[in-house]
Amino acid sequence: MKPSSSTSEHSASPSGPRSLWGALFTDPDVEAETCDGAWLRAMLDFERALAIVQARARIVTEEAARMVVTAIDVGHYDPVALGEGALTSGTPVVPLVRAIGAHVTTEGRAALHNGATSQDVLDTAMSLVAHRALGPILAGLRGVAAECERLAERHRDTLIAGRTLAQHALPTTFGLKCAGWMVAVDEAETALARVRTQRLAVQFGGAAGTLAAVRSGADLTGQLADELGLAAPLIPWHTNRTRVAELAGALGEASGVLAKIAQDVVLLAQTEVGEVAEGDGGTSSAMPHKHNPVRSVLVTACTRRVPGLVATVLSAMAQEHERAAGAWHSEWQTVTELLRLVGGAVRGTRELLSRLRVDPERMRRNLDLTGGLLMAENVAVRLADRIGRSEAQDLVAEVCRTAVAAGQSLRDALLADLRIGLSEKEIDDALDPAGYVGSAGEFVDRALVAHRGRGRS
Amino acid sequence: MKPSSSTSEHSASPSGPRSLWGALFTDPDVEAETCDGAWLRAMLDFERALAIVQARARIVTEEAARMVVTAIDVGHYDPVALGEGALTSGTPVVPLVRAIGAHVTTEGRAALHNGATSQDVLDTAMSLVAHRALGPILAGLRGVAAECERLAERHRDTLIAGRTLAQHALPTTFGLKCAGWMVAVDEAETALARVRTQRLAVQFGGAAGTLAAVRSGADLTGQLADELGLAAPLIPWHTNRTRVAELAGALGEASGVLAKIAQDVVLLAQTEVGEVAEGDGGTSSAMPHKHNPVRSVLVTACTRRVPGLVATVLSAMAQEHERAAGAWHSEWQTVTELLRLVGGAVRGTRELLSRLRVDPERMRRNLDLTGGLLMAENVAVRLADRIGRSEAQDLVAEVCRTAVAAGQSLRDALLADLRIGLSEKEIDDALDPAGYVGSAGEFVDRALVAHRGRGRS
Amino acid sequence: MKPSSSTSEHSASPSGPRSLWGALFTDPDVEAETCDGAWLRAMLDFERALAIVQARARIVTEEAARMVVTAIDVGHYDPVALGEGALTSGTPVVPLVRAIGAHVTTEGRAALHNGATSQDVLDTAMSLVAHRALGPILAGLRGVAAECERLAERHRDTLIAGRTLAQHALPTTFGLKCAGWMVAVDEAETALARVRTQRLAVQFGGAAGTLAAVRSGADLTGQLADELGLAAPLIPWHTNRTRVAELAGALGEASGVLAKIAQDVVLLAQTEVGEVAEGDGGTSSAMPHKHNPVRSVLVTACTRRVPGLVATVLSAMAQEHERAAGAWHSEWQTVTELLRLVGGAVRGTRELLSRLRVDPERMRRNLDLTGGLLMAENVAVRLADRIGRSEAQDLVAEVCRTAVAAGQSLRDALLADLRIGLSEKEIDDALDPAGYVGSAGEFVDRALVAHRGRGRS
Amino acid sequence: MKPSSSTSEHSASPSGPRSLWGALFTDPDVEAETCDGAWLRAMLDFERALAIVQARARIVTEEAARMVVTAIDVGHYDPVALGEGALTSGTPVVPLVRAIGAHVTTEGRAALHNGATSQDVLDTAMSLVAHRALGPILAGLRGVAAECERLAERHRDTLIAGRTLAQHALPTTFGLKCAGWMVAVDEAETALARVRTQRLAVQFGGAAGTLAAVRSGADLTGQLADELGLAAPLIPWHTNRTRVAELAGALGEASGVLAKIAQDVVLLAQTEVGEVAEGDGGTSSAMPHKHNPVRSVLVTACTRRVPGLVATVLSAMAQEHERAAGAWHSEWQTVTELLRLVGGAVRGTRELLSRLRVDPERMRRNLDLTGGLLMAENVAVRLADRIGRSEAQDLVAEVCRTAVAAGQSLRDALLADLRIGLSEKEIDDALDPAGYVGSAGEFVDRALVAHRGRGRS
Repeated sequence: MKPSSSTSEHSASPSGPRSLWGALFTDPDVEAETCDGAWLRAMLDFERALAIVQARARIVTEEAARMVVTAIDVGHYDPVALGEGALTSGTPVVPLVRAIGAHVTTEGRAALHNGATSQDVLDTAMSLVAHRALGPILAGLRGVAAECERLAERHRDTLIAGRTLAQHALPTTFGLKCAGWMVAVDEAETALARVRTQRLAVQFGGAAGTLAAVRSGADLTGQLADELGLAAPLIPWHTNRTRVAELAGALGEASGVLAKIAQDVVLLAQTEVGEVAEGDGGTSSAMPHKHNPVRSVLVTACTRRVPGLVATVLSAMAQEHERAAGAWHSEWQTVTELLRLVGGAVRGTRELLSRLRVDPERMRRNLDLTGGLLMAENVAVRLADRIGRSEAQDLVAEVCRTAVAAGQSLRDALLADLRIGLSEKEIDDALDPAGYVGSAGEFVDRALVAHRGRGRS
Repeated sequence: MKPSSSTSEHSASPSGPRSLWGALFTDPDVEAETCDGAWLRAMLDFERALAIVQARARIVTEEAARMVVTAIDVGHYDPVALGEGALTSGTPVVPLVRAIGAHVTTEGRAALHNGATSQDVLDTAMSLVAHRALGPILAGLRGVAAECERLAERHRDTLIAGRTLAQHALPTTFGLKCAGWMVAVDEAETALARVRTQRLAVQFGGAAGTLAAVRSGADLTGQLADELGLAAPLIPWHTNRTRVAELAGALGEASGVLAKIAQDVVLLAQTEVGEVAEGDGGTSSAMPHKHNPVRSVLVTACTRRVPGLVATVLSAMAQEHERAAGAWHSEWQTVTELLRLVGGAVRGTRELLSRLRVDPERMRRNLDLTGGLLMAENVAVRLADRIGRSEAQDLVAEVCRTAVAAGQSLRDALLADLRIGLSEKEIDDALDPAGYVGSAGEFVDRALVAHRGRGRS
Repeated sequence: MKPSSSTSEHSASPSGPRSLWGALFTDPDVEAETCDGAWLRAMLDFERALAIVQARARIVTEEAARMVVTAIDVGHYDPVALGEGALTSGTPVVPLVRAIGAHVTTEGRAALHNGATSQDVLDTAMSLVAHRALGPILAGLRGVAAECERLAERHRDTLIAGRTLAQHALPTTFGLKCAGWMVAVDEAETALARVRTQRLAVQFGGAAGTLAAVRSGADLTGQLADELGLAAPLIPWHTNRTRVAELAGALGEASGVLAKIAQDVVLLAQTEVGEVAEGDGGTSSAMPHKHNPVRSVLVTACTRRVPGLVATVLSAMAQEHERAAGAWHSEWQTVTELLRLVGGAVRGTRELLSRLRVDPERMRRNLDLTGGLLMAENVAVRLADRIGRSEAQDLVAEVCRTAVAAGQSLRDALLADLRIGLSEKEIDDALDPAGYVGSAGEFVDRALVAHRGRGRS
Repeated sequence: MKPSSSTSEHSASPSGPRSLWGALFTDPDVEAETCDGAWLRAMLDFERALAIVQARARIVTEEAARMVVTAIDVGHYDPVALGEGALTSGTPVVPLVRAIGAHVTTEGRAALHNGATSQDVLDTAMSLVAHRALGPILAGLRGVAAECERLAERHRDTLIAGRTLAQHALPTTFGLKCAGWMVAVDEAETALARVRTQRLAVQFGGAAGTLAAVRSGADLTGQLADELGLAAPLIPWHTNRTRVAELAGALGEASGVLAKIAQDVVLLAQTEVGEVAEGDGGTSSAMPHKHNPVRSVLVTACTRRVPGLVATVLSAMAQEHERAAGAWHSEWQTVTELLRLVGGAVRGTRELLSRLRVDPERMRRNLDLTGGLLMAENVAVRLADRIGRSEAQDLVAEVCRTAVAAGQSLRDALLADLRIGLSEKEIDDALDPAGYVGSAGEFVDRALVAHRGRGRS
C-alpha cells in the first residue's frame, strides 16, 4: 500500500475554528493545526499508518488494512461525541477505535489498532499536532527574523539612547537593537526546528511498552515513523517525557524572545519616548489621540502565559510506571495551549515589526534629553589618556554634578571648567553620540552575515 | 427601571458547548458559565446595568436607557465576530459597543457605555463570570464534603494502615482519612466562598480610573454593584489586582485539596493495595481485568495544570500605570481555564467519592502485611511503663530486626524473647491494631461536628 | 510550669546571617527569622512546649520536663551538624532529638518528643518561622502603606498623565495613583495578617496523625497552640496543606502589590518621563549622569521570583496518605524563600517610597506632550450636550487627526474649526487637565478615610 | 601573559559551605561551585581574564595587567561585605571593582574592568558558575546512567508487572523499566552537555552593549572566551536570554527524568509492593519496621521545586532595552538554586540506584496477584487466530468477569469454559508471563547498545 498522511492535507481548513479570544491570542493557521479536528486527524493518521505498515509486514491482510484506511475519514467522526465517550476510559481513543470499528467488518477490525494502546495513539497524535503547528510557527519566526534583518540593516547607523535600568546609559544604534532581536529569534528558531525534526517521535509500545500483542513489533516503529514523517525512538518513550519537555522548553524560549521584542516596542512607543509606533496602532473612541501598541500588548499577553504552562509540562515528567495516572493526561491541552500562544505571539510580532514606524529624528532628539550627560563616559575616556582613567572619571563625574545642579548642559559645564583642558572642538567631538557607539556597526554586520548564512547551512 | 441581571438567567444553556477535551477536564455547568457566550452575557450585563443606574441617576434619559436595554439581547451578538473585531483595539469591547450601538438610535447611544472604558466592561465581566462559575463549583465542593462526611461517619472505626513516605507506619482509620479530606474541602470552600462574596467586585473607573466622563460617577459604583450582585470596591481597582490574585489563590487551594483526595484514591486502588475502587472504573478492551481509577486520574490531570496558571495570574499583578500593556490581557483566558479545571476536578472528585467502593476487609488484611511490625511502637509504649521509654524502644527495635531477619512474625519473635516479659495476652493486645488508633475516633467526631455546624454559621 | 517561647526572644540576633545576595534580596530582620538558626529555635520551641504541656497534663513528670527544658538551648545545637545528620531519615528532627537526648538523663528522655513525630516538629516550626517572619513583613507593609498615605495626601491634586497601554490617556492625579497603591497594600496586609493569626497552626498528630502514642493527646493540641502563640487546628493537618497554600497565596498577593508599585516607579523614573526619582538612586562609575531606580529594580527582582515558588507550594498540596514522600519536604526551603523575598520586596518598597523624589512640575509638563490631545475626550463631553455624544466624538476625533497631521496643537485646531462652536474661553476650559480629573480627589479622600479607619477596627 | 583560570582551581574547597538544608537538597560538589565564594571566584576570573587579554592586545600595559592579576586573589575579598556594598548599585560588581582597585596603583587601575560593565562580569560569572557546577552534575548523570545500565543488563529478563494508571496491565521486565530510565538520563545528559559546551558564553558588551569604551573591543570577546573556557557569542547577549533559558530548560529536563526514577522507586518500595528497597533506607525510632525510601523522597523534593524556577527564568527573558530593571537580577539566585537542586537530585538518584535492593521473587509473586487476569490479553491473542480478534477479546473478557465474580483464577475459569477450546497446556502457556513480554528484551539490548555507543561518538 502506498504511504498516506493525507488526512491532514485534505481536511484541514485554511484557518481553525475561531472564538471570542482566538483572534487575540493565537494564529489562525496554528489554531487550525491544534483544534479538536486537528487532534482527530492526527489520531486517525496513526491508525491509518498502523494498518498500512502492518499490511506491508504481512501482520494483517492487505484487505483488512484497506478497509481500515477507507473507514478513516475525518468527516466520519465527531470530536465532541468522542469527547463525551472519553469519560469512561479517560481518553478519546477507546471511543474513536470503536467508532472506526463500526465502519469496518470483523475482518477489517483485525487491522485496526492492532497491538496499539491509547497512549500510542495520543502520543503520536501529539507529536503530529506539534509537528504540524510548528510549520506556521517556524515560518512565522523566520518572518520575524526577516523583519528584524530589514530593520537592522536599514537602521545600522540610526542613533538611539542605550537604556539600562530604564535610564539613558550610552548611545547605541537602533540597528543593533534589532540585530539583537534577530539573533535571539534565530537561536529560538534553531532550537525549535531541532526539536521538530529530531525529537517529535512516533510512539508505539502497546499496553505496557513491550509490544507484546504484535509480532515483530519493534521493527514496525521505524516504518510508522517514516509513514508519518516523525522521528523514530530508540525504544518506546511512554513514560520518558524528555521529548515533551524539550518541545515545551523550546516553545518557552521562543516565547521569551518575542516577549523581549514586544516589551521594547511598548517602551519605545510610550508617549514620552515616541521613537516607534505600531503602523496600525489601535485607537480608542474615547481617546482619539491614542495610538495603542495593540500588537505588542497582545504579544505580551500571550508570552506571559507561557512559562506557567512550561512548568506544568516539566512537573508532569514524573510519570509513574508504564503509564502515568494523570500527569500524562495533563499534557494534551497544555501542549495545545503552548503551541497556540506561541503561534499568537509569532504572528503578532511579525505583524508589528512589518508595520513598525520608526522615527530616527525622535531617537536622535531623545539622545539630547540629558544635555550631553549621556556622553560623559566618552569625555572621561578622552581625558583618561591625559590624566589617567580614575582621575578622568572622577573629574567628569564632578562636572556632571555641577551641570545637573546648575541646570546647565554638560557642554557648557565642561567649557567652564578649566581643569578639563579640552578644546571646544574636542569637547564637541567627545559629546557627539555618533562617535561613541563603539562596535555597534560591526556587531550589526556580523549578525547579518550569520543570519544570512543560516539558510545555507 | 427595575433591576435585571436576566441575561444570564435566560440564555445560559444547561450545559456549555462541548469539545474533544471538555468532558474530561471540566464540568458542563462550569463550562456553560465560562464559555464565549457566558463572557458575552456578562459584558452585556454590565452595559445594561450601566444604562439602568444612569437612568435612575438622571444622567441619561430613561428613554435612552430603555433602548439600550432592549438592544441587549445575547442572541444579537456573535462572540466569534466580536473576537475578530477585537484585534484592532485588543479587546472585544469596542466591537461589542459598536454592535450594540447599531441597534439603537443616536439618542439611545447617549445611554450606551457612558463614561465607561473597556476595562470596566471586561473586569466586571470577569467578576460576573467567576461569580457564576463559582456557583456550581461551590455546590460541587459542598457535595464533595458531603461524600467525605458520609465516608468518615461510616468508616469511623474502619482500620487501615497509616502510611508515611509510602510505607506502613501505624494503624489509623479510613474514617479519619476521609475526615481529613473533609476538613480540607471545607476550608477550601470557605476560602472560595469568601472571595466570591466579598472580593468579586464591579469595576467602574472610566478611561483612566477617574470617572472623568460621567457626572457624580463615584456614586454609581455601588448601584452598579447592587444591580449586578457583585461587591462594590472602595475605589476603582483597574491596576490593583488583589481580587484576581485572591480568586486564583483560592482556586489553587481548592485544586490542591482535590488533588490530595484523588492521589490517595489512586494509591489505595493500586492492584497491590486494593482497598478502594472507583465504582465505575474505566476498563480497557485490551486488558479486561483492569479497573482503572479514571475519575481520580482525570482529577489529577486537572489539578496538575492549576499551579502554573495561578503563577501566571500572580505574575500579572504588576500592571503598569492606569492599564497594563499585556498583563491585564493575560488574565482572561487564564482565569477562565482556572475555573474550568477546578470545575472539572470538583465534578470528578464528587463522582468518584459517591461511587467509591471501600473494602474494609482488604484494609484489615493489609494491616497484617508487616507481620505485626506495624504495631511495634505500641509494644514499646506498653513496655515503656516497665523499663523506660528509650530502653523499650531499643529492645523492641532489636526484636523487630530479629523477626525480619528470621522471617518471623513480630508476635513469635516477642514470645521468643525472654527480656520482653509480657504475657501472650498482653502481646496480643499490644499487637491489635484496633487498640492503637489513639484519638482517631475522637478526631473524626470533632471534624463531623464542625462540618455539620458550618451550615448554621 | 510557666509558659515559655523564649528561645526566639533571647537568641535571635538583630539581623540574620548575611551573604553575597542577602542584602539585595531580603530584609535582615526577615532573614534573622528564617535562617538556619531560626528554624532550629522553632524546632526547639516545639520540643520545649511539648514537654511543658505534658508535664502540666501529668503525662510526664515535672522533673523530666524540666530536664528537657533545660537541655533546650539553641547554643547547644549546630544547624550544620543537624543538616548532616538529617540525611539518614530525611529531616533534621531525628538528629535533633538525639542531640537533645544526649543532654538529659534517661528519666528526662521520657519527656522528650513524647508522642510526637518529625512532621509535628517541622510543621510547627514552619508555622513559627512564618509567624515570626511575618512580624517584620507586616510591619513593613504597614510602613509601605503609611508612605503611600503620605504621598496620596500630599499629591491629592497633583496632576499627572493617566497612562493606559503605555500611552497618555486622560489626566489623573499622582495622589490617586498612590491611593491605589495604598488600597492594594492594605488589602494584602489584611490577607497576610489573617493567615498569620488564624491559619498558622501547631501540628500534633504523632506518627500517623492519630496521637496513638500519647494518652489524651487530642487535648494537648490546644495547650501547645497557646504555649506557642499559634492557632489550634480542628484535627491534625499533616496532609491537609490548606494552611501552607493560604500562606503562600497571601505572600504571592503581597508580592504582586509591591511589584506594581516598583514597576510604576521604574516607569515614572525613566529618563524621558522623569516624574519621580529614587532619593538615593544608584550611580554608575562609568555613567555619572545615571540615576538608577535601584530599589525598584531590586523589588522587581524579588517579586518576579515569587509566583514560581507559590506554584511549587500549590503543586505540593497533593500529599499522599499520612505523610508525603517528597512533596512535604519541598515546602521547607520554598516557604523560607517566599518569606525572604517578600521581606526583601517590602523593605525595598518602603525605602524607595520614603525617599521618593516627586516632580509635580515635570508631571504637569508631560501632560502637555500631546498638545492637548489628552483632553480630547473632555472637549467631546462638552460638545456632546449641544450636538449629541456620538457626533461630538466623531467631530473631535476628526479635529484631532487634523491637528496631528498639521503638527498643530489641539487648541489651535479647535479654534480653526468653525463646526466646533465653542468660545476660546470654553476651549481653554475644556483643555485644562485640572478640570477633567473626575472623581480623583473624592477617590483619594475615600481611600484615606478607609485606610485610617483600619487601625480602629 | 599566559592563560589562567586558576582562581577556581586553587581556591575551591572540596565541598561547599553546609547548612541545615544543604545536605538534604544539594550535592556538596555542586554547592561548592555555586556558593558565594564560587560566584566571587567567577567574577574575579572575568576581571583577570579581561586584564590579560587586554594586555595581549596592547590595550593596557602588561605592567598594569600584572598588578590586576596579582590583586585578584579570592582570599582578599569577602562575599558578605560585597553583598552589603551591592545595595547601592544593585549588584556586587561595583564594590568588587572598588575593592580590587584598592589593591592596585593608579597605573594598575587602567587595566581593571576596562571597558566592562557590571553585567559583563555577572553574566560571565553566571556562565562560569553554571559551567563548573555542570561538571559534577554531568558526571553524576553519567553515574546514574551507569547504574541504570547495570540494572537493565542484570534484570533484562526479570519479570515485573507493567502498571498503567497504577493498575497491573501486562507483564514487562524490570530491565526494560531500567533501560527506559537510562535512555531518558542519556537524553537529558546530552541536552545539558550541549548547553554547557555550546551555549554558556562569555559576556562582553560594555555599558550599553556597544563596547564603546574599549578600542577594537569586538575582537577581545573570542579571546576572553578562550581564556575562560566558555563559548564566544556572535554579539553581546545582555538582553538576549536564550542561553539562560536553554540552561534552565535542560536542567528542568534532567530534573524531570530523575523525578520519574525516584517516583518509580517510591512506588515499587511501598509496603504492599515491596519489589525494591533502598539499601540504606531511613529508619524511624518510633517505627523500627519502616524502611523509608529516603533518597527517593529527597530526590522527589528537589525535583518538585525545579519547574517553578524554570518558569521564573523564562518569565525573565523579556529584558527591556539594553539592561533589564529587575528581570536580569532575578536570575542569579534562581540559576544557583536550579543547579543546586538538580545537583541534589543527581546525587540522590545515583546513591539510591547504586544501593537499590531488587527482589525478583516478589516481582514475580506480585504478577500473580490478579490470578492470571494480567495475561488475559495473551489468551485473547492466542484465541484470535482461531475465532477472530474481536470475538476473542469479547469471549476472554466474559471469562474474566466470570472469574472475578466467582473468585476463581483465570486459569480455572478458562478450563471450565467450553467455548475456549484451548488445551490445558495451551492455557498454561498463554498464562505464563514470561511468554508475553513482547520485544522487552530486544528493547533492553537496543538501549544498551546505544548507551554504550555514546562514549564513542
